[in-house]
Amino acid sequence: MTKEIERKFLVRGDAWRALATGIMYRQGYLNSAKERTVRIRTADARAFLTIKGITIGATRAEYEYEIPFDDGKEMLNTLAEKPLIEKKRYKIHLGSLTWEVDEFLGENAGLIIVEVELASEDQVLEKPSWVGDEVTEDPRYFNANLVKNPFTRWS
Amino acid sequence: MTKEIERKFLVRGDAWRALATGIMYRQGYLNSAKERTVRIRTADARAFLTIKGITIGATRAEYEYEIPFDDGKEMLNTLAEKPLIEKKRYKIHLGSLTWEVDEFLGENAGLIIVEVELASEDQVLEKPSWVGDEVTEDPRYFNANLVKNPFTRWS
Repeated sequence: MTKEIERKFLVRGDAWRALATGIMYRQGYLNSAKERTVRIRTADARAFLTIKGITIGATRAEYEYEIPFDDGKEMLNTLAEKPLIEKKRYKIHLGSLTWEVDEFLGENAGLIIVEVELASEDQVLEKPSWVGDEVTEDPRYFNANLVKNPFTRWS
Repeated sequence: MTKEIERKFLVRGDAWRALATGIMYRQGYLNSAKERTVRIRTADARAFLTIKGITIGATRAEYEYEIPFDDGKEMLNTLAEKPLIEKKRYKIHLGSLTWEVDEFLGENAGLIIVEVELASEDQVLEKPSWVGDEVTEDPRYFNANLVKNPFTRWS
């Protein structure tokens, strides 16, 4: 088990686009309940099964296993809750940090957010100019909630 | 993905006990919905994550991955739905078939069932004398339902 400490922000403008190439992610849930989230994700030609516990502050228990790509693709298509989440992920390395920009497609088109993983909850963060308001604790932006209530349906 | 074709029966008497040694199984669900069951199981010192789709007849899509034992134990204790299912499993090899007797403990104590995996749905089955009535399609005996409504609470 690893503990994830992540902060999540909205993205401003397009300056980040010059900094990385996007990789296509497809993901779906075998359980989207926050107490025991079970996610299948394909990233390019690899597939992963990820289990997360409940979020306490910015910390969450996480278990991740790589699985055969064909299994992942098949489970996404046949077993996972719909709609799937489809997004392009851009990994941007700045100093010791990796900023992961997610540009959503499909039913969440128009939404762009960025996540950064930290070593501790109180780590001081220098934000690039294209990193906007923090939404770490806003449940609307939890990936599992973007299945139930996609961005294009927000009023 | 593999397809599982299993038939399930009640067990009569104790003649089967001489035929195998039991191994302790602990299992719990990260999702017990029949459309996408996600199960953690420890068997002796190994742990497995198993995903199953909906049962059609006696056939069900199944994906199984071995995971580190400590992960499995931790997820059972912290994330899985309670109560856990605890049982001793006895694998009995007769001819080309393996009969798996499950002697339940804890909240399902008193229940003993046997499962046999077949190559096809119409395979002819010679039942040993200790194999009783068939319960393959009785949902009360689905392991996921033995969490929600354990045997000791049946009226």
